[in-house]
Amino acid sequence: MTLDQLETPRLVLDEARLEANLARMARHLAGRAGLRPHMKTAKSAEVAHRALEGQFGGITVSTLKEAEQFLGAGVRDLLYAVGVVPGKLEQVAALQDRGADLTVVLDSAQNARAVAQRAEGLGIRLPVLIEVDTDGHRSGVGPDAPELLEIARILHAHPATELRGVMTHAGESYNRRSVEAIAALAEQERLGVVGPAERIRAAGLPCPVVSVGSTPTALLGRSLEGVTEVRAGVYMFFDLVMAGLGVCGLDEIALSVTCTVIGHQPEKGWVITDAGWMAMSRDRGTAKQPTDQGYGLVCDLEGRPFGDLIVADASQEHGIITHRRGERFDLGAFPVGRVLRVLPNHACATAAAHPAYQVVRSDTEVRAVWERFGFW
Amino acid sequence: MTLDQLETPRLVLDEARLEANLARMARHLAGRAGLRPHMKTAKSAEVAHRALEGQFGGITVSTLKEAEQFLGAGVRDLLYAVGVVPGKLEQVAALQDRGADLTVVLDSAQNARAVAQRAEGLGIRLPVLIEVDTDGHRSGVGPDAPELLEIARILHAHPATELRGVMTHAGESYNRRSVEAIAALAEQERLGVVGPAERIRAAGLPCPVVSVGSTPTALLGRSLEGVTEVRAGVYMFFDLVMAGLGVCGLDEIALSVTCTVIGHQPEKGWVITDAGWMAMSRDRGTAKQPTDQGYGLVCDLEGRPFGDLIVADASQEHGIITHRRGERFDLGAFPVGRVLRVLPNHACATAAAHPAYQVVRSDTEVRAVWERFGFW
Repeated sequence: MTLDQLETPRLVLDEARLEANLARMARHLAGRAGLRPHMKTAKSAEVAHRALEGQFGGITVSTLKEAEQFLGAGVRDLLYAVGVVPGKLEQVAALQDRGADLTVVLDSAQNARAVAQRAEGLGIRLPVLIEVDTDGHRSGVGPDAPELLEIARILHAHPATELRGVMTHAGESYNRRSVEAIAALAEQERLGVVGPAERIRAAGLPCPVVSVGSTPTALLGRSLEGVTEVRAGVYMFFDLVMAGLGVCGLDEIALSVTCTVIGHQPEKGWVITDAGWMAMSRDRGTAKQPTDQGYGLVCDLEGRPFGDLIVADASQEHGIITHRRGERFDLGAFPVGRVLRVLPNHACATAAAHPAYQVVRSDTEVRAVWERFGFW
Repeated sequence: MTLDQLETPRLVLDEARLEANLARMARHLAGRAGLRPHMKTAKSAEVAHRALEGQFGGITVSTLKEAEQFLGAGVRDLLYAVGVVPGKLEQVAALQDRGADLTVVLDSAQNARAVAQRAEGLGIRLPVLIEVDTDGHRSGVGPDAPELLEIARILHAHPATELRGVMTHAGESYNRRSVEAIAALAEQERLGVVGPAERIRAAGLPCPVVSVGSTPTALLGRSLEGVTEVRAGVYMFFDLVMAGLGVCGLDEIALSVTCTVIGHQPEKGWVITDAGWMAMSRDRGTAKQPTDQGYGLVCDLEGRPFGDLIVADASQEHGIITHRRGERFDLGAFPVGRVLRVLPNHACATAAAHPAYQVVRSDTEVRAVWERFGFW
């Protein structure tokens, strides 16, 4: 079976590129810090097994559903990297019962007390990382906030919690405009979490884990001194946002979506396809980058970009392909029925729109179908 | 079970509002045109059965997967409203074999010939509507284009196709800025498809079906003279985009997403929740409206909006709630663990992120769980 024989739209994963991307990150971190791949992008057991080859075996997840699924696939060392609340601990306890070594994160003294109390009520012992806010973009206690040590003391003192360390995520890296700016943010991310770790240790408390991570800072940061593990997820597949940041080249993007030409508007220079925002996602992450890729960059069936053809607009099940500067191109080369591939803005969002990966190896032959899971 | 006892995020459907919305559209169209509900929003057999009560029984779908699912749920009269191509006719034939009266659409003479030829090869007879472009936003042949009659003649002459009529979709209505502008577009939509129907009939060809539809034009248009059926889908649920257009009130929006407060950034006035863009979708349809609702409007558990609290930013599994003008509000009213509801920008996109509806009736008690299907 080749890609053009499948119904469209379908999500395609180039396994050769996946392997190269995994190898690149492994080489980059080797001997400097552990890699705890974030599986929120891939949500696939097959991808997790490949991402863990040669690594210490832990993964990061963004939902307890992911934790459950990957535990079922044999991964026991799980970091649930979204702030936990007491109401979720029953689920956590069930995962521990099934053999998970599940670490949670939180960022306030009040919640640390409530979580410890609930854990005690459930009769579990809970490993916890303190989330530190190193770039102001989301959750976390400030690196210099007095509350940091208060949280550490609560978690260490309470019999139902185990203070395992600190973590941060430099999500602002997605908004930086140069490789140098990302490298600077990576250093800020590192210092912003190594400092708190030192404060915790200076207070006589344990802090074995110092965890950082985002694909841009992981690949473009220079020092990892004091860091014990790196969390990243998009590096497995990459996407147009990462290419726009200078983190990867277009020929490293492992994910694409097939579509079929279903019509034209010759006067406007439009090719219309059956892959709209339902297949590409509504993510417009390149809109604020110097090169706006619309809803995706158009490639031939072999995955080679035409250059300036993008999915400029999308309805639920229609994509409109045009030249990005409105230049005319030969519509005759895109007859009704032709199957194309589109590189996505944001791998996490586009992959989430599909139930499986059609796996190829730098060609058009479908060698396997890997299931994805979704929801909560 | 009440909504706050479920894991979060979950998709909530208020059945009382659904019923009122269905009744509103039914009243609005009664005696003027048939209603062929577009099921691409709901993708649920339970919703389809309710939407068809008192109607003639046909529905609209945007994928052949929807056609297959709704046929399985007992709906036989199906309009596949995305341009068909020869490569999809094998699936269409299989649906016909199972008893579907499936109509397809196309918009070029070349494709009409290719589709007719493939239908003949498969030994099927295919009802076809000609898609007309009445607002320049997507597919369709121009209302005055000579090609319209050429397509009609091909479809009528060929033994494998049946010319059933014309259809259009005024998708530009989503971009209009006033009720008057939408009403004007509705009239343009009507004239743009009634005219072609008259041209086809004047040429001695049949044109029994004259189909229009979008929720804004369906509800705000004044005349339906010459129209035989209306297709609309979002009217069942409504959403913030529709409210922003003046098509509905906030208290008519039947869809919401639950989330749990997982933390705060007190210095910034942020409440952080576990419903990010994965649960709300990346749709930012209100960004270009006078009132930007971010990733959604925040309500209490009973579904009452707080007013100016919106999900101002979102990561994959984090939502950041702030006051829309940056004003301070009492974070103490939103403790960790509190469950909230968020009204979505775009019902189609948000619903697609979830596998089921938690059904309530203007309260917080979950009375049923209705499954949704997705993908292709």
